Amino acid sequence: MPYFDAASSAPLHPVARQALQASLDEGWADPARLYREGRRARLLLDAAREAAAEAVGCRPDELAFTSSGTRAVHSGIYGSAAGRRRVGRHLVVSAVEHSSVLHAAAALEPDGGTLTEVPVDRAGAVSPTAYAAALRPDTALACLQSANHEVGTVQPVAEVAEVCRAAGVPLLVDAAQSLAWGPVEEGWSLLAASAHKWGGPAGVGLLAVRKGVRFAPQGPADERESGRAPGFENIPAIVAAAASLRAVRAEAAAEGERLRALVERIRVRVPELVPDVEVVGDPARRLPHLVTFSCLYVDGETLLHELDRAGFSVSSGSSCTSSTLTPSHVLRAMGVLSEGNVRVSLPVGTAASDVDRFLEVLPGVVSAVREKLGAPVVASGPAVAHELVVDALGKRCPIPVIELAKVIADVPVGGTVTVLADDEAARLDIPAWCEMRGQEYVGESRRERGSAYVVRRVG
Amino acid sequence: MPYFDAASSAPLHPVARQALQASLDEGWADPARLYREGRRARLLLDAAREAAAEAVGCRPDELAFTSSGTRAVHSGIYGSAAGRRRVGRHLVVSAVEHSSVLHAAAALEPDGGTLTEVPVDRAGAVSPTAYAAALRPDTALACLQSANHEVGTVQPVAEVAEVCRAAGVPLLVDAAQSLAWGPVEEGWSLLAASAHKWGGPAGVGLLAVRKGVRFAPQGPADERESGRAPGFENIPAIVAAAASLRAVRAEAAAEGERLRALVERIRVRVPELVPDVEVVGDPARRLPHLVTFSCLYVDGETLLHELDRAGFSVSSGSSCTSSTLTPSHVLRAMGVLSEGNVRVSLPVGTAASDVDRFLEVLPGVVSAVREKLGAPVVASGPAVAHELVVDALGKRCPIPVIELAKVIADVPVGGTVTVLADDEAARLDIPAWCEMRGQEYVGESRRERGSAYVVRRVG
Repeated sequence: MPYFDAASSAPLHPVARQALQASLDEGWADPARLYREGRRARLLLDAAREAAAEAVGCRPDELAFTSSGTRAVHSGIYGSAAGRRRVGRHLVVSAVEHSSVLHAAAALEPDGGTLTEVPVDRAGAVSPTAYAAALRPDTALACLQSANHEVGTVQPVAEVAEVCRAAGVPLLVDAAQSLAWGPVEEGWSLLAASAHKWGGPAGVGLLAVRKGVRFAPQGPADERESGRAPGFENIPAIVAAAASLRAVRAEAAAEGERLRALVERIRVRVPELVPDVEVVGDPARRLPHLVTFSCLYVDGETLLHELDRAGFSVSSGSSCTSSTLTPSHVLRAMGVLSEGNVRVSLPVGTAASDVDRFLEVLPGVVSAVREKLGAPVVASGPAVAHELVVDALGKRCPIPVIELAKVIADVPVGGTVTVLADDEAARLDIPAWCEMRGQEYVGESRRERGSAYVVRRVG
Repeated sequence: MPYFDAASSAPLHPVARQALQASLDEGWADPARLYREGRRARLLLDAAREAAAEAVGCRPDELAFTSSGTRAVHSGIYGSAAGRRRVGRHLVVSAVEHSSVLHAAAALEPDGGTLTEVPVDRAGAVSPTAYAAALRPDTALACLQSANHEVGTVQPVAEVAEVCRAAGVPLLVDAAQSLAWGPVEEGWSLLAASAHKWGGPAGVGLLAVRKGVRFAPQGPADERESGRAPGFENIPAIVAAAASLRAVRAEAAAEGERLRALVERIRVRVPELVPDVEVVGDPARRLPHLVTFSCLYVDGETLLHELDRAGFSVSSGSSCTSSTLTPSHVLRAMGVLSEGNVRVSLPVGTAASDVDRFLEVLPGVVSAVREKLGAPVVASGPAVAHELVVDALGKRCPIPVIELAKVIADVPVGGTVTVLADDEAARLDIPAWCEMRGQEYVGESRRERGSAYVVRRVG
């Protein structure tokens, strides 16, 4: 039963399991105590810190273990922003950061914080020039992921770090998705990561803060982990996290190459096997194990459900799977199709045969979902009217796009179809459909209920 | 090698170990995902919540798992204070709360928070009347531990809860030290606890918030655990925490009775075996497994070191073991001797023979430390001067008290000894010595360096 959602959480690495079990007997005492059980716990903690720091590429005293990657991001952003409060309260983030970064940045706003989101290109990458333009004299901190969690695009960290260095602004890098594959490029000031993403246990994050970076821990005082991570240290999990990071790094070059080839197979074969698919994210500058594609005329939630029934666990940034019914902010920022979105992220050790089986199963699953939703298979009869209106009010994605596709051939070239829709995803998906189909997106006008989206038939 | 510091952290319970190992295979995926691995993780999480809620005595939807007891306390205090911001920003805590409570309360002060510390009696207990007097119309929250972590005294939670209920103020109970032994008395609004105190793994705390209690989670938005505990859930550890709580509860009545008798043996025998000892904390209303005593003329750090060499791991609230060199705020609030302080807290399963061996070893260890420090063994020669001055400036505890004890017999009854000392602990320990010895503590006057403490010989 293949699990293809390593980017959410990776199965526990065998080395993590061994290290966890081996340290349960010695790692439960308080490492701040001076008696033998405390000293043993302290030795384990110190050794884990040395190992993790080496993998991160920092000094052990620059590295704190937090209770999660989310907490590492929160503590990093709060501590850094507070440490540079005299400079100002402006933050710069990319538009495609993980929600933990965006939410921490937003939480500073009631206290006078301001935020600039740096846009990305259609591949999901930021440009160093855009970061340079966003930095201001009152910028306290800039944040950039090392690689995107939804589409796998690797960001130009070194170049952005150089731009930040020149402006005297510290750069926090969220390395959650990439740390398993290698150290982050030079130049970062703060780095956050999460152990369960690389096959370590849940409950362990990393926060590295370079010496010399201004940092003022926020929240109640607590002497653990240099004041950067309150609460009793979870030493067996920390030991397991550090040991498994070393283990995945030792395999990273070979396994990365192998998974990169499997992902390439998906990137090439999916558009051949499934009509009306867009593979998103940078095809070259990408994580080795992750690929994302969107399928026109498909409801993401149904697609994931059917893939699960077929034995494949995958994820989606599609509007239709989120509990809030808003499309993924990442796909939205990229301006790509969000409907029928599927993220495949292969865990270490994924068998090539499982990927092949996924490619066998996928076309049938997609076409079954499309059939159920009444999606168009071939363009229909001769055109009559020059202007058509499709009422898709109250209908959730991908119905508005399906209705549009059904009637576009009913108007002559130069004619228009107006889609009335009140699903927020339509704002993203109708223009994306036009780009994929080579039709012209004329624009949107707000109505009392929803919006009218006008599309001109070009071909 | 007996470990007598369960109040810091208990060794992992066998049930916790089994549950942890059993859930490593099924508990690593994201419980928010709808595929099979996510559904399995969700089932484990739901079952653990049911079990923990039953042990706490609340509804499952009132209980969130946090990453530590410290985080549970922080989240509880911040969320409750924010939820009742319109009422006011006044907090009431006992003077002997755990540092996580006191630090969270202090962290609200820059934002306009005010704090009343309710004093305790010489046994370490608060009085409901004192809580009633401390509550004000602008009181947002009151906090009280179920039992004290340093001296084991059980607090009158039900009575204080009734006082709070009458005033319309929610009560947060820090149940970290007592939850293994049974549910907290009725009437609390919020409850915090920590799994590694009952033999569960580190990395798991509990925060229960009764329905109807105003609560506004603080910090960056995060959808996990009802917004009360950000970060990816640590499900194997949560499962182990819940399973071990059930297991220790099943043994609590019998094991509590057994440990209570062992602690009683220590309470009775230590003063018989070791001269100049004060056993502190309530002798009856106390935790079953915990006892604390202070030894005159002894340096706590040396004492702990010598007990460790003799094979016993114990803790201390003595000024001399803390990294900050300030005496325990608990012992200070009780007004009891802090020097040479030893806390013995027996883990579940402690052998009676280990306690007996501790009682055999202790007298020799204490007298060796006293001898090394030159402490008085018998009162010395005839009195001559009516006033003596002892210069103990620059000398750390317990030297000032040892110097006082050496010369008190050198002044006649009615005469005084003035001790010059600049160690902060002297302010606590000289009055405590006077009370233990039946001498009169006249008072303190500040000097350019340190203080002068005047003691009148009474007997």
